[in-house]
Amino acid sequence: MISPICLFVFSFIFSCSYASHVQDFCVADYAAPQGPAGYSCKDPAKVTVDDFVHSGLGVPANTSNRYKFGFTSAFSFNFSGLNGLGVSLGRTDVEVGGVVPIHSHPGATELVVIEEGSSIIGGFIASNNKVYQKPLNKGDTMVLPQGLYHFFVNQGKTPAIIYAAFSSESPTVQLLDTSLFKNGLASVIIAKTTLLDVAQVHKIKKLFGGTN
Amino acid sequence: MISPICLFVFSFIFSCSYASHVQDFCVADYAAPQGPAGYSCKDPAKVTVDDFVHSGLGVPANTSNRYKFGFTSAFSFNFSGLNGLGVSLGRTDVEVGGVVPIHSHPGATELVVIEEGSSIIGGFIASNNKVYQKPLNKGDTMVLPQGLYHFFVNQGKTPAIIYAAFSSESPTVQLLDTSLFKNGLASVIIAKTTLLDVAQVHKIKKLFGGTN
Amino acid sequence: MISPICLFVFSFIFSCSYASHVQDFCVADYAAPQGPAGYSCKDPAKVTVDDFVHSGLGVPANTSNRYKFGFTSAFSFNFSGLNGLGVSLGRTDVEVGGVVPIHSHPGATELVVIEEGSSIIGGFIASNNKVYQKPLNKGDTMVLPQGLYHFFVNQGKTPAIIYAAFSSESPTVQLLDTSLFKNGLASVIIAKTTLLDVAQVHKIKKLFGGTN
Amino acid sequence: MISPICLFVFSFIFSCSYASHVQDFCVADYAAPQGPAGYSCKDPAKVTVDDFVHSGLGVPANTSNRYKFGFTSAFSFNFSGLNGLGVSLGRTDVEVGGVVPIHSHPGATELVVIEEGSSIIGGFIASNNKVYQKPLNKGDTMVLPQGLYHFFVNQGKTPAIIYAAFSSESPTVQLLDTSLFKNGLASVIIAKTTLLDVAQVHKIKKLFGGTN
Amino acid sequence: MISPICLFVFSFIFSCSYASHVQDFCVADYAAPQGPAGYSCKDPAKVTVDDFVHSGLGVPANTSNRYKFGFTSAFSFNFSGLNGLGVSLGRTDVEVGGVVPIHSHPGATELVVIEEGSSIIGGFIASNNKVYQKPLNKGDTMVLPQGLYHFFVNQGKTPAIIYAAFSSESPTVQLLDTSLFKNGLASVIIAKTTLLDVAQVHKIKKLFGGTN
Amino acid sequence: MISPICLFVFSFIFSCSYASHVQDFCVADYAAPQGPAGYSCKDPAKVTVDDFVHSGLGVPANTSNRYKFGFTSAFSFNFSGLNGLGVSLGRTDVEVGGVVPIHSHPGATELVVIEEGSSIIGGFIASNNKVYQKPLNKGDTMVLPQGLYHFFVNQGKTPAIIYAAFSSESPTVQLLDTSLFKNGLASVIIAKTTLLDVAQVHKIKKLFGGTN
Repeated sequence: MISPICLFVFSFIFSCSYASHVQDFCVADYAAPQGPAGYSCKDPAKVTVDDFVHSGLGVPANTSNRYKFGFTSAFSFNFSGLNGLGVSLGRTDVEVGGVVPIHSHPGATELVVIEEGSSIIGGFIASNNKVYQKPLNKGDTMVLPQGLYHFFVNQGKTPAIIYAAFSSESPTVQLLDTSLFKNGLASVIIAKTTLLDVAQVHKIKKLFGGTN
Repeated sequence: MISPICLFVFSFIFSCSYASHVQDFCVADYAAPQGPAGYSCKDPAKVTVDDFVHSGLGVPANTSNRYKFGFTSAFSFNFSGLNGLGVSLGRTDVEVGGVVPIHSHPGATELVVIEEGSSIIGGFIASNNKVYQKPLNKGDTMVLPQGLYHFFVNQGKTPAIIYAAFSSESPTVQLLDTSLFKNGLASVIIAKTTLLDVAQVHKIKKLFGGTN
Repeated sequence: MISPICLFVFSFIFSCSYASHVQDFCVADYAAPQGPAGYSCKDPAKVTVDDFVHSGLGVPANTSNRYKFGFTSAFSFNFSGLNGLGVSLGRTDVEVGGVVPIHSHPGATELVVIEEGSSIIGGFIASNNKVYQKPLNKGDTMVLPQGLYHFFVNQGKTPAIIYAAFSSESPTVQLLDTSLFKNGLASVIIAKTTLLDVAQVHKIKKLFGGTN
Repeated sequence: MISPICLFVFSFIFSCSYASHVQDFCVADYAAPQGPAGYSCKDPAKVTVDDFVHSGLGVPANTSNRYKFGFTSAFSFNFSGLNGLGVSLGRTDVEVGGVVPIHSHPGATELVVIEEGSSIIGGFIASNNKVYQKPLNKGDTMVLPQGLYHFFVNQGKTPAIIYAAFSSESPTVQLLDTSLFKNGLASVIIAKTTLLDVAQVHKIKKLFGGTN
Repeated sequence: MISPICLFVFSFIFSCSYASHVQDFCVADYAAPQGPAGYSCKDPAKVTVDDFVHSGLGVPANTSNRYKFGFTSAFSFNFSGLNGLGVSLGRTDVEVGGVVPIHSHPGATELVVIEEGSSIIGGFIASNNKVYQKPLNKGDTMVLPQGLYHFFVNQGKTPAIIYAAFSSESPTVQLLDTSLFKNGLASVIIAKTTLLDVAQVHKIKKLFGGTN
Repeated sequence: MISPICLFVFSFIFSCSYASHVQDFCVADYAAPQGPAGYSCKDPAKVTVDDFVHSGLGVPANTSNRYKFGFTSAFSFNFSGLNGLGVSLGRTDVEVGGVVPIHSHPGATELVVIEEGSSIIGGFIASNNKVYQKPLNKGDTMVLPQGLYHFFVNQGKTPAIIYAAFSSESPTVQLLDTSLFKNGLASVIIAKTTLLDVAQVHKIKKLFGGTN
């Protein structure tokens, strides 16, 4: 136990020597150890407003892929000020006719708002296999409860921009396709545990460079 | 203890009688008791996709007030699907020259993204009185750590639209002005506990209909 | 505020009138409202030891299905004493050559121990698509981090019995196959968001009674 | 989903019809169902300042018992405003030569401050059996980490008054003596699971009215 | 994975080599990295009872300031044993006629008990602007829900001593006055976001050495 | 703030340079600092499937002690993959006529399943001194709510094997006997705070090597 003589009243009339006890935030220090609750905190004396501001969501993501969609994240791994604060943002761009492939966020709920576009089908599948889906238009919001499969289909006539808020500062993304097909998981195991035909598995593995 | 004989394997090959044990979500039943963790859950059999979709953020909020700003919320009290999921959204409109008055969200972090506008000063004040502020432009995000005072000033040439994500499905908002001046808190107490002049207190109370 | 005169010292020397303030547990009252944190609590006066004991994991689950596996749960929906306590158990039986199909538990970590069997491949897929898999034998434990896809394949010569502990009293289970194929999600949407061939989708939908 | 038209800006300039969405607190409604997170919330319209104020800690607790100590609680079961807020208070009185018997608080940390008295030994036992103890005097604080056995011995020349803060609004108290001896737990089981002599068990059971 | 052969039964009959796995507490090591959940843990072998005991709340805080109040904290930054345990204490002294200025604790609930004094008005303001206030006397407790503005006014005839428990081991304090006036936040911005007159802002800034 | 240009879409079509942002798990790095939320995370690039698999629960624990029981743990201190995931497992062996001595787990709920054996009395004591006990047989499960005293007595004709799941990855164990008798806590203090006779205290201290 250290000897505390820095009384509160001093902290607002005089200056106080406990510079490091500001606990309002814990800006990520990417060079220090990480723990289950997030990154270590940067020395508060070195924190600047730039730790709390992030640019990048104003630019469309690259959509030149099979699904015609792209995603840009503002998560704690690239936005240091979010560390430990339990919220993050992302931007999804979906071309006309494009989709956001089926995926889930283990342990995070997603809440989207349609920023541009119309007739964008948003959908998720509950654990009892029931599908909840609806066409969304500009200004609509939809919640995708944590850990459940969801997807979007842009059936409108213009590209879609979707902002997504997450209930975690470091949500992860598990894509059905890349989880199954972009690695070395044996095709026979995939086939047995999904009932997909081996030929189908091989075909999609080729698209993603999967092996075995 | 009830006698469980509804085995998992049945739940996807046959139908199962435990209709109510879907725990993926807890849509708010506004008519049932509320607890510290949120609203009671609506009967899952009555839940529809409309519980997970909310419209309203596409429309500008009324900004005809002193500050020239307006706010529209998609919180669990008006968006039933958010109940218990730890995230919510809001939309703030700020006219040219307008401001978002100083306020805080007890227990929730806010993460904004500038959807329209430029030269919008975003700022917050840490508990050691240090101010973190910066002009924000379209696509910029800024995090306002939980419980701290913050504000926005639209110094740009166009109206601003700001989306805000919160780390709670039911964030509350404590505005400095209305907390002090839009109630019956005695002016002499306000003066003593804030060092404001009594005349100043009376003047602003008049604007908000405060008494005493 | 009620007038409290039930002092602590009385509670162990005399009897006390606040019968309902036992907070050690909150046994589920299935007839009362449910909230985000779980079921309402049964009146403590009506709680018996049977609320804390559950039978059923001693009996093999029915494995007469395509995957040759079965699952029996001891979750809060069928084991009232678990309500609010953050842990539950299940038993999985897998025939020789059988599998546990790919699935995930939104928001719950699973920790298994092999109770009978050998050469049982346990595997999970991280969100960066990396596969972690290994043959497990009697007495081995494996952890499947929350929300990630996982599966088991019984490559041994005897039926397997696997006990699974969960970091939630009410874990849900999202199966890839039934999520995609045991409902009315349009085949064309499935095809676009998973890259599966429509013919493949139709073929598996038939197995589960899926439509569209 | 209900149709929300109650915009934020109205809430501080005009009155708004969503009277019940104040989420700053959840005062206990003792007549409604209780859940794992606490009591149901009282209708905010019926909440008064008296829900947030509690009297009773100013009065010494009855200490006429074997240990010469008494305890008065301000917990959520008798102080409605604490519901869901994660903190509570108690007052312990210990006569000269008296003790607070060995006990623990399942799931709550206790933090005491000596309000009157001197030479009061405070002690707790860690799970590796190490004892942490020290004489405490007026103004000293000591923390008793959650769930661990602890005790106090008043070796001073004046009665002691100890205030205790808890990291839970509804801490429970498990006393070693009454847990073992003030019920019908078979003496032979107590003896086998504690190594106490049966005669000793019988002797103390008599003090507390225990049976078997 | 390390090879564990330290069985539980050994841990209480023989000594065991896993000295560092005591998880009962995590005493702060102020020299190691800090994370969102608190300080790193001190080596358990170096922890002593002095880490769990803190002196300092027995001494009146310096009250020679404008408000005639002082505050002494026993928080995790100066009381290492509190780290990670979710509770802390403070002592407030208020001279006759003095006040505790309006402030809030972002993310922590405060629960006070009047240890000396009478006719001390305690008050807080809810987010719907409603004021809850009441005169408090010795032995009274009052809860100030997390993040809300609160204040005290000593209208009695003797100095007041108030103990405060917090639902966090590291509560922060945001004072209205110093947040607005003891930094370089532009007076014109303060004026626009609070409706205070610029002259008033300048006047109070002078008291605190604020600039701009 | 670092400049993020690693867009999501790249992460599954190309490789991406942010190797360390996998947040699915936080495998313990025993050499780095520990915090209140657990161990620091091992570099994800060095994590292998062996971090998620643990062997040792297949082997009976040593039961050659007074109680005729043994315990083997798979907790985060010896099973690195469990770090931060909120669940763990243990195996208890109890000889015929043996017992699991009275103990509690501060802050963790235990959920057992009888894997071998019959007529095993499982029991726990609530904080109001009520005993909940029942004979358990193979396949039965029983929940022991967090922090409460519990015990097992093998009254069957065969050795018992009990698997236990915990609602924490690092549960601690506080044994009544070793807490009181396997250290230097003064016998007179034990006697006063438990009402045990000093002679009884001395007698059991001898068994455990306790002093004073």
